[in-house]
Amino acid sequence: MEKKIITISREFGSGGRTIGREVANRLGVPFYDKELVDQIALESGFAPKFVEENGEHAPGKSILSYAFANQSIPGVMNGLSTADFLWSIQCSVILQLADKGPCVIVGRNADYILKDRADCLNVFIHADDDFRADRIVRLYGESEKSPMSRLQEKDKRRQVNYQHYTGRTWGHVKNYDLSLSSSKLGIENCVNIIVECCGL
Amino acid sequence: MEKKIITISREFGSGGRTIGREVANRLGVPFYDKELVDQIALESGFAPKFVEENGEHAPGKSILSYAFANQSIPGVMNGLSTADFLWSIQCSVILQLADKGPCVIVGRNADYILKDRADCLNVFIHADDDFRADRIVRLYGESEKSPMSRLQEKDKRRQVNYQHYTGRTWGHVKNYDLSLSSSKLGIENCVNIIVECCGL
Repeated sequence: MEKKIITISREFGSGGRTIGREVANRLGVPFYDKELVDQIALESGFAPKFVEENGEHAPGKSILSYAFANQSIPGVMNGLSTADFLWSIQCSVILQLADKGPCVIVGRNADYILKDRADCLNVFIHADDDFRADRIVRLYGESEKSPMSRLQEKDKRRQVNYQHYTGRTWGHVKNYDLSLSSSKLGIENCVNIIVECCGL
Repeated sequence: MEKKIITISREFGSGGRTIGREVANRLGVPFYDKELVDQIALESGFAPKFVEENGEHAPGKSILSYAFANQSIPGVMNGLSTADFLWSIQCSVILQLADKGPCVIVGRNADYILKDRADCLNVFIHADDDFRADRIVRLYGESEKSPMSRLQEKDKRRQVNYQHYTGRTWGHVKNYDLSLSSSKLGIENCVNIIVECCGL
């Protein structure tokens, strides 16, 4: 496999995580999603739930740091805001994981964090709103908000976080080697295309 | 072939046209690029060179309409500016060509013009600046402008034209089913991926 690290950025509900997991299975390499959250939590001292909710979200939004920490913060945060501290740990963990060997990393701006590596295949998965709305209701259930509001809110937070920490536009083709519509091409076909591209 | 119409949008110098031609060859369907320009020229009364230079460019920029026309304009332009008149003819020609049957159409905002058809595969081809700069010098020769200026100028005009006539952002993943980096994946592999996706 020439492209050793596959980063998958995705719209909420597009199936990007499912696609990433299947690509990792097919290639026989580690899949970092929940594991990534746990590792960042361990290194930062924040609760996994806090890392999961804030790691890809707008800086300064609902971050009540210590209240959610599952242990005391190791040392000081070097004068950084909680969001910036979390970002610095996230960068460090992702760089370490990529150094370990081939893997699939979902989300967390990994495409940008690993931009200096030539062996990355950066993928973006998106889908029509109807496809995504239907999918999040099936996977995560109903909530008091409409599915469309949930999509918009989550994507907006990812957009703002990406823009803030990378200076790039989330979802612009130039940031990715391969961008696929899972609603148009189908989830299984997206997996096939990514796996083929890894061998290029 | 399930996706009958393939539209290819592309950054200048990315190889999008070459990829489109090869996809058309492989699928045995017509390839509309120069032919599209000729058809628009015929229907509008403008010279092919004028259509080629202005059909994807910013409205109102260096458009001296009649001075370049190769024949008199048939009838009036219905009060439209030259750019808007050219756009209306372009839309009409592209809709007619798509109705004729499977084909590959390069550029001219065809992804947007055909947005109501379910049988389109909309592709965007992009590449690193170095790859593109090298390619345009090899293909089109040197000029008094630097290759980087030529890339920026041409892409900017396509961006502005797309934004003006579609209200969308040129190069945003959501406008395309498939976006590929030809510098990362290679031109031949881009062809293979598109051909495979046409059968989905």
